[in-house]
Amino acid sequence: MSATSATGPPAAGLSAGAQARLRIRRGFSGPTSGMAAGLVQANLICVPADWAFDVLLFAQRNPKPCPVIDVVEPGQVESALAPGSDLRTDLPGYRIWQDGRLSDEVTDVTEVWDRHPDLVSFLIGCSFTFESGLSEAGIPIRHQEAGRNVPMYRTSTACAPAGRIGGDMVVSMRPIPAAQVAEAVRITDRFPAVHGAPVHIGEPGRIGIDDLDSPDFGDPPVIAAGDIPVFWACGVTPQAAIRDSAVPFAITHSPGRMFITDEPEDTYRR
Amino acid sequence: MSATSATGPPAAGLSAGAQARLRIRRGFSGPTSGMAAGLVQANLICVPADWAFDVLLFAQRNPKPCPVIDVVEPGQVESALAPGSDLRTDLPGYRIWQDGRLSDEVTDVTEVWDRHPDLVSFLIGCSFTFESGLSEAGIPIRHQEAGRNVPMYRTSTACAPAGRIGGDMVVSMRPIPAAQVAEAVRITDRFPAVHGAPVHIGEPGRIGIDDLDSPDFGDPPVIAAGDIPVFWACGVTPQAAIRDSAVPFAITHSPGRMFITDEPEDTYRR
Repeated sequence: MSATSATGPPAAGLSAGAQARLRIRRGFSGPTSGMAAGLVQANLICVPADWAFDVLLFAQRNPKPCPVIDVVEPGQVESALAPGSDLRTDLPGYRIWQDGRLSDEVTDVTEVWDRHPDLVSFLIGCSFTFESGLSEAGIPIRHQEAGRNVPMYRTSTACAPAGRIGGDMVVSMRPIPAAQVAEAVRITDRFPAVHGAPVHIGEPGRIGIDDLDSPDFGDPPVIAAGDIPVFWACGVTPQAAIRDSAVPFAITHSPGRMFITDEPEDTYRR
Repeated sequence: MSATSATGPPAAGLSAGAQARLRIRRGFSGPTSGMAAGLVQANLICVPADWAFDVLLFAQRNPKPCPVIDVVEPGQVESALAPGSDLRTDLPGYRIWQDGRLSDEVTDVTEVWDRHPDLVSFLIGCSFTFESGLSEAGIPIRHQEAGRNVPMYRTSTACAPAGRIGGDMVVSMRPIPAAQVAEAVRITDRFPAVHGAPVHIGEPGRIGIDDLDSPDFGDPPVIAAGDIPVFWACGVTPQAAIRDSAVPFAITHSPGRMFITDEPEDTYRR
């Protein structure tokens, strides 16, 4: 499939979210930061029904990294936030987890899904959502400017455990010019459903991050002179918990490759 | 046990919340509106582990009537919001549900609990919490003035179903002097974890309430001339859902007889 046919012609009559999902379904496999600006993006975690309560309770107890915006019940593949969507094909990348180990990384999970008919899917708000708000305020998004994925790090901050699930918080980092840090806090605080205000500003070592240039997920950061590292709770946190808790089976998105909904970010502004 | 010994002497060194729970444990069985002012009160629903995901998902999809403030896992009886508490004895009244039918109403569920060792308990924020804020603003709380339980009504507003659970929303009603209705909205809007702003003001028939004098739970209202009926989403909503969904077994609080936590209401103010 060539790059052109993978992307395909623009589809008339589709919403911006549906167009983005169609582009992904046809083969786009990159990070989604900057796509469909102004629409809510979401992290994905799917587990067998037997583990669904633990995951939902983990999210309820850790709303900062795990703000649940939709739960899709067993046998269903369409999110209420995106009519016509198919969770098995509409993300640019998926990870398959077996007994807490990453066993595969793919762009379509239709067949895997068929073998696990009782999967429950959780959509968790993503901080990409508020990047358009930051941009509109004139705050640079360094990873977008550089065409990179956002850097993400495991921290030493333990999440509240729930049932059989526990683990440390994962954060995303955006370098922000010092003069604009307060404004970035103010803007993102209005979006609690997509992680809200930062969890830490300025001292990576204090949250267990030794080397900013070696993120655990995503790409290394581009940090300009005078930038302060600002950290937001990240929806990859459940992936760290899956690993630490040896969950028997799970499907997640690949970090940075999100599910794009039809929901305007304003829906989640307080 | 006499009324005096049931109430007992004040216990030195206990928090206001612990003192209230002790008073209840010793036999107080009335409504808790006005008790331990400034501390968060909670509705209770306990279901077997097999039903826990459905209940938590129902709450997640209906945060206005069902704001979860704590989940107590199987085998546990103490809430993290109230050290030393015992969910089996520390509420003034409990209801036992079998196959969706109310089978008993008791003041202690220790023995019932022993027969159902896998119960998961959900604490849901209660609007009694914000009554002290209303009082401080000079807004009369009619049911407190009259020494009555708050009136609660089933509405015709369907909740979002979740798994095997669904039902209509239950609301509590407080008659508010017309000149103070806006202030009551403003104050309660700051407490989303205890139902937040009203769901309806002024026209009971529009939400399926035919007769204000015949509440479905609690006592009939006392309405002064010039009062407007103001309706808040109510944590009794899961009880209506238990009935409508024929949940095989559940324990809940008796309407108006809440669990008193040690959490200051300010914890949940936004």
